[in-house]
Amino acid sequence: MRTVYVNGKYLPENEATVSVFDRGFLFADAVYEVTAVFDGRLVDFHGHMTRLRRSLSELQMELPASDAEILAIHRELVRVNNVTEGIVYTQVSRGSADRDFLFPDVGLTSTVVLFTQHKNLIDNPTGRRGLHVITVPDQRWRRCDIKTVQLLYSSLAKTRAKQQGADDVWMVLDGFVTEGSSNNAYIVNQDGTIVTRELSNDILHGITRHAVVRCARNLQMPLAERPFTVDEARSAREAFSTSATGLVSPVTSIDGVTIGDGKPGPVATRLRDIYLESSRANAI
Amino acid sequence: MRTVYVNGKYLPENEATVSVFDRGFLFADAVYEVTAVFDGRLVDFHGHMTRLRRSLSELQMELPASDAEILAIHRELVRVNNVTEGIVYTQVSRGSADRDFLFPDVGLTSTVVLFTQHKNLIDNPTGRRGLHVITVPDQRWRRCDIKTVQLLYSSLAKTRAKQQGADDVWMVLDGFVTEGSSNNAYIVNQDGTIVTRELSNDILHGITRHAVVRCARNLQMPLAERPFTVDEARSAREAFSTSATGLVSPVTSIDGVTIGDGKPGPVATRLRDIYLESSRANAI
Repeated sequence: MRTVYVNGKYLPENEATVSVFDRGFLFADAVYEVTAVFDGRLVDFHGHMTRLRRSLSELQMELPASDAEILAIHRELVRVNNVTEGIVYTQVSRGSADRDFLFPDVGLTSTVVLFTQHKNLIDNPTGRRGLHVITVPDQRWRRCDIKTVQLLYSSLAKTRAKQQGADDVWMVLDGFVTEGSSNNAYIVNQDGTIVTRELSNDILHGITRHAVVRCARNLQMPLAERPFTVDEARSAREAFSTSATGLVSPVTSIDGVTIGDGKPGPVATRLRDIYLESSRANAI
Repeated sequence: MRTVYVNGKYLPENEATVSVFDRGFLFADAVYEVTAVFDGRLVDFHGHMTRLRRSLSELQMELPASDAEILAIHRELVRVNNVTEGIVYTQVSRGSADRDFLFPDVGLTSTVVLFTQHKNLIDNPTGRRGLHVITVPDQRWRRCDIKTVQLLYSSLAKTRAKQQGADDVWMVLDGFVTEGSSNNAYIVNQDGTIVTRELSNDILHGITRHAVVRCARNLQMPLAERPFTVDEARSAREAFSTSATGLVSPVTSIDGVTIGDGKPGPVATRLRDIYLESSRANAI
């Protein structure tokens, strides 16, 4: 049985609980991070911690632990659960208080929950064959840069996509793609330029996005950070998405339209290989 | 100590917990209702149950209990907690499963949580003096008709309003008021017409809204269901909001601009009295 961390305790997963008055449960008043584990080591841990603290700060929330303490919990969970490849999930909610829309005046103690999942991230079948995505309106709240647990729309949209035979969705706001259900979206234009939406409140500031954009720039691949339309995406040479768990995932069809020759393209494949190599080398 | 209902058990509030893997906690994959209690009896219970089942249905979620069973839980909680005036809160989440954006294929058992709160709903100071509201952009997800726990934006906005000396917010989408943080919004124009936004995905289909609109029509008060602008609201004769806990609450300033003479107006006051009388008479 998996061991889970809850507020200072390491517990068997079936005893890992939070109060029904936890504001994470009642108000989605909580933020999270997902850190990949390769070879038993953590990928871009400090990037995730920096983003976690930014999310907390945007919501006037505190994390009563240092990065070193959170790192120690990550490592202990990876150890006791024998995670060679997978993820560590971290969620911080504002804490428990009787239900009120107003944030409690007095300092609550945040609820801190961490757990692991074993996953094949590297040798993943969709990484090889490519994802089929469909486009849907982006109906999420307008602060997608804050990584909150308000994930119901993404969850519902991805589930509906699956029910229709696709793997994921790309969301569209005012005619332009924002991002996937839990990943950033990219295309490679016919002129070979990688295009991905610029950072704003409309998308998650992906840790993997940051690393992959840096890889592309280091390799002097042409890259433009700007919005792109669904039509542009459908007529692209390649498409792909990035996330901590999907790494670089080729997208081979959009709304049933085949992208390129319907196989993972060379740009996505190369970026996947380089990102993977660099992440493994730098994991801690 | 309060007694709380969780999945078939009546528990002391400090033992009322849900799994950290509950999708309500991880994905805000949960819906809720708040039913007012007057004189120890439930206001518009069946209206709340109808809306709860609609919210569940929109999210492909099940409630493994009949209305009669949920009613019995409400009554038992009201009894053991000696609630004369207050609320019963009901939350249903999809249940617990290892974290995945996709809804689990196999039928999960929903998590059902109910608890009570003692509140002065009737003799409420803000009901007498009126609310000060400020307007903010409506940045919530675009299915506000589904009563989910994705309440972080409303909670944050109301808290910021309080920090600025106001009581609540009215949210504005494309120049038109949608609703308050947890209430529907109304104005009374200079010609005496009550104006409130029509039902759509942009607002909660308030149970109290339904009752108050019916009261107004029965009294042959002129009423128009259409969007109104912030300017229209600021120059209105009266403004008010409705909700299960706020009943009919006069709004006496918007963005610091005094509405009417700065006191609760006759239309809001009359509707509050009539709504209260009718709710008490029909409570079960």
